[in-house]
Parts: sequence; structure tokens; C-alpha cells
Amino acid sequence: MPQTPHIERHFTSSEVVRDIVIGMSDGLTVPFALAAGLTGTKTINTAIIVTAGLAEIAAGSIAMGLGGYLAARSDAEHYAKEREREKKEVAEIPHEEMREVAEVFQAYGLTEDETWPIVQALRRQPANWIDFMMRFELGLEKPEPKRAVVSAFTIAGAYIAGGFIPLAPYIFSHSASAALLLSVALTLAALIIFGFVKGRFTGTKPLRSALQTALIGSAAAGAAFAIARLISA
Amino acid sequence: MPQTPHIERHFTSSEVVRDIVIGMSDGLTVPFALAAGLTGTKTINTAIIVTAGLAEIAAGSIAMGLGGYLAARSDAEHYAKEREREKKEVAEIPHEEMREVAEVFQAYGLTEDETWPIVQALRRQPANWIDFMMRFELGLEKPEPKRAVVSAFTIAGAYIAGGFIPLAPYIFSHSASAALLLSVALTLAALIIFGFVKGRFTGTKPLRSALQTALIGSAAAGAAFAIARLISA
Repeated sequence: MPQTPHIERHFTSSEVVRDIVIGMSDGLTVPFALAAGLTGTKTINTAIIVTAGLAEIAAGSIAMGLGGYLAARSDAEHYAKEREREKKEVAEIPHEEMREVAEVFQAYGLTEDETWPIVQALRRQPANWIDFMMRFELGLEKPEPKRAVVSAFTIAGAYIAGGFIPLAPYIFSHSASAALLLSVALTLAALIIFGFVKGRFTGTKPLRSALQTALIGSAAAGAAFAIARLISA
Repeated sequence: MPQTPHIERHFTSSEVVRDIVIGMSDGLTVPFALAAGLTGTKTINTAIIVTAGLAEIAAGSIAMGLGGYLAARSDAEHYAKEREREKKEVAEIPHEEMREVAEVFQAYGLTEDETWPIVQALRRQPANWIDFMMRFELGLEKPEPKRAVVSAFTIAGAYIAGGFIPLAPYIFSHSASAALLLSVALTLAALIIFGFVKGRFTGTKPLRSALQTALIGSAAAGAAFAIARLISA
């Protein structure tokens, strides 16, 4: 067991990593599966596959990017609203709030006597008290101010970067089936590398993460291919 | 200000709602945008749009569902691993851990004297102490055991349900441009209703949420349409 001090888990770069993972997972998988699926139809040419693929990348990156923007904005608003409420409650019904502080600790087997000094100390410092309630009663973390915009562009950019990998062979080839083979090889390689790196960041074993990511891509592409072939048969 | 007691924010149904929102946001938006985009190309028939749309729904629902499954699994593993670590630390370096408990409170302006009773009380109850550290030092919530499987099916199901709404007109019509108009109308209506209901659950003003959701869908579809038209021109 390492004797190093705990590392703070809520640092900004981990949120950027999370956004890259969100965008790139889908960016690598869905355009890949769509292009593979369309190759499964009878009368197809690479021009339509490229068009559909680029349309999908545009739609997917905008939908996910704006979705991420709104999610971050809504988190920030939720936090601000709850903080206003705690502020009011601390001012208007302090005894109720003191009881709530005590309850937080009683859930961990502490008696009222043992929690009393903390309750009293927080009471003397309303600003700290409010912050304390936000984190320990409500479990809310203060969001970064520019989070929403950064999140939107990170997710969308990762989606676009991921999406061009499976699509590239269709752009440069006129044979859909030749492009499919190259796309499968390129995308599987990308999924394995991405899964491996992702594993290192998220704490899953890198090899297992690489395998899982490749599996998701293959399952999605396989299902899309099967459905497209079924319909066009 | 309501005088009702605080509602616990981490109940299970809110996680299901969150998964439905994740799946349906993208399910309504991306197949809609893809189908609209393909209608923007010169030589297109509804059969190819339906094939591409169904392939996208298959790919998207599998990618997002499996992605949600792995995310929940990885959360659960992360929690278990960190709990093991805290357990060891509480047993092997209790004084270091006692200092960490005190530090949690000192960040809120409490003195060492004021935190002492709690540190002592937790020390007498190792199981509660570990739970306390998980939540208050690391900010981790104990995950539900069946979370991963439920999450996967909820996200995938919501994606499929959402995706069939924009695609339905193309399935039942032979004219791509007529289907596009009906698809736009249907999907905008669905996005507005979905955004409104989502707003009620997530705490955003329902009307604003409805507008935002419709805007994301329109932006994604507009971009996909423009790109497809540009390429095929």
C-alpha cells in the first residue's frame, strides 16, 4: 500500500479527461458502426457513406457538445439555487439547520454530545456553515465557472477527432468493401489504444479497458451491419 | 421559501431519470439530424435513409448502453477499491487518518479542539469511520449493486424509443422531402415535450428546458443538412 498522501480527486484535468472520454467513445463507435452498417446494404457507394458519416459526425458532435454545455450549466445553476436556499435557512431557521448538522454525524454513529462542539463552531461562522452544508448535507461540489463552455468544446472536438478515423478510408477509397476492411482495422486499433489510455486515467486495468472499448465498438458495428443487411435484403 | 424538510437527492429513481435523459436526448437528436442530413443530398431515397437511420439507432443505443454499463461498473469498482484502501489505512495508520478527519473540518474554519470529540468518537467505530472517510474525505457515494445493468437497458431503451420518432415518417413515406417535413414537425414536438418534462425533473425551468432541447435538435439537424448538401452539391 502506498504511503503517499491522498490525491484530491476533483481537480480540473480529470473533468477534461472525462469529457474527452465521453466524446471520443461515441465518436469512434457510432460513425464507425454507421459506415459499416451502410456497407452491409446491397446498392451502396462510398459517396453516400461519406455523406452519411459526415452528417452523423456533425449531428453527434453538436448534440453531445451542446448537451454537455447544458448539463454543466444546469449543475452550476442547481448549485447556486441550493446555496441560496441554505443561506436563507441558516439565517432564518438556524436551529433546524443545527439539527441537520447533528443528523449528518449521527448517521455515522456519533452521539449528540460528540457533535455539539462542531455544531456550535459552525454556528459562529455562517459562511463556512453554508459551505459545509452544501458539501456534507447535499453532497454538492462547487462547479468551475467556465466549465460549461470548456466541456462543450472538449466533447465536440473529441467526437469529431474520433469520428474521422473510421470514416477516412471511405473518403479515400471508391470501393466500399475495401474501405470497410481498412476502417475496421484502423478503428479497432484506435479503440484499443483509446481504451488502454482511458484505463490508465480512470483506474480500470488498461488491458481490460482496451478490450472492453474494442468490444463495444465491434458490438455496435456488428449490430448496425446486421440490421442494414437485413433491411436491404 | 418552503419549510418542508430537505429531500434526499440521491434516491434511485433520479438515476433512472438521468439515464432516460441521456439516452433520449441523443436518440431524438442524432437519428433526426442524420435523416434530415441525408434528405439534403441530391440523389437519395427513403429506403437508404431508413437503413442508415436504423443502423444509427442500433449503433447508438448499443454504444451508449454499453458505455453506461461500463461507467457504472467502473464507479462501483473504484468505490470498492478506495474502500479497501481506507479500511487498510484506518487499521494500519490510524493517526494519519485521524489527522485527515481533522483536516476535513479545519477546511471549514473549525479548530483542532473543536474537531477532537468527533475524531475520538469515529476512532472507536472503525466501520463508521471508513464510511465517513469515503463520503467526506473522498466525496464518493456507495453505488447501487444492480446499477450497471439497469443503467445499460434504460439508456439503450430510451435511445431506441427516441430514435424511432424522427425515423417513422421515412418508414411510411416514399417521398424523402415530404417525410422530412413530417419528421421535423414530429421531432420538434417530441423535443419540446421531452425538454419540458426533463426540466421538471432536473430543476431547470420547464419552458426554458423545452426551448433548449428543441434548439439542440435543430442545430444538430441544421448542421447535418448543410454538410450533406455541401458535399453532394
